[in-house]
Amino acid sequence: VELNMNLKHLLQVGAAVLTLSMTGVAVAQQPRVSVVRIAELEIDPARMDSYNVAVNEEMEASIRLEPGVMAIYAVAEKDHPNKLWFFEMYADEAAYDAHRNSPHFRKYFDTTKDMITGRRLIETVPVQLNAKPQ
Amino acid sequence: VELNMNLKHLLQVGAAVLTLSMTGVAVAQQPRVSVVRIAELEIDPARMDSYNVAVNEEMEASIRLEPGVMAIYAVAEKDHPNKLWFFEMYADEAAYDAHRNSPHFRKYFDTTKDMITGRRLIETVPVQLNAKPQ
Repeated sequence: VELNMNLKHLLQVGAAVLTLSMTGVAVAQQPRVSVVRIAELEIDPARMDSYNVAVNEEMEASIRLEPGVMAIYAVAEKDHPNKLWFFEMYADEAAYDAHRNSPHFRKYFDTTKDMITGRRLIETVPVQLNAKPQ
Repeated sequence: VELNMNLKHLLQVGAAVLTLSMTGVAVAQQPRVSVVRIAELEIDPARMDSYNVAVNEEMEASIRLEPGVMAIYAVAEKDHPNKLWFFEMYADEAAYDAHRNSPHFRKYFDTTKDMITGRRLIETVPVQLNAKPQ
């Protein structure tokens, strides 16, 4: 299984497409992302500051320490700053499972569970993921 | 206004943070993104293939031709493949407005409007945008 996973990763990286247009501007297809999770969270308005400290720490650690966590984007609704949306990109299901069991995620989960007043998780699969090359 | 916009961009690029951890792995903060839009779309199941052709062309053109369109991610709900979510990152409001008025977006809009059976647009502001350096 371990070998298969590595082989799968290699193939995914190899399949990442970098297109050069006639204007010479590159369009990158996001490589190595087969699992995307969207989460909609409502935070107790009185606990927003504490929540933000905890989630920022958890997001930073996830990207830095976990090879299969490719991106975590957190945004707030313009008209409801305590309604947060997360768009999370993982290499594969194994990376997602490892993330949910990581020490930094468990710490975040325990710290924030009483601050979160509503939660919805949407499981998705990529259709097309296009970004400017960084 | 043009000069101010360029200055704002320069400052945003300058403020982009690249953190080197103790493990030597870099964490990139997404630079130059101040506007994020989430769209939830329901597509007529019988028109999915035609819709995908049109939206893929529009996404590719947007990233390639528009300097202020930083990323467009399209995903489908695992259990409802005709329910699509879009997570779109723009440099600023002007870039978002320019995108909505671009020829490729107008073409996509006209081509797909009868294929879309439900639509919700959520205006958001970034809280934290973390990604692996590409």
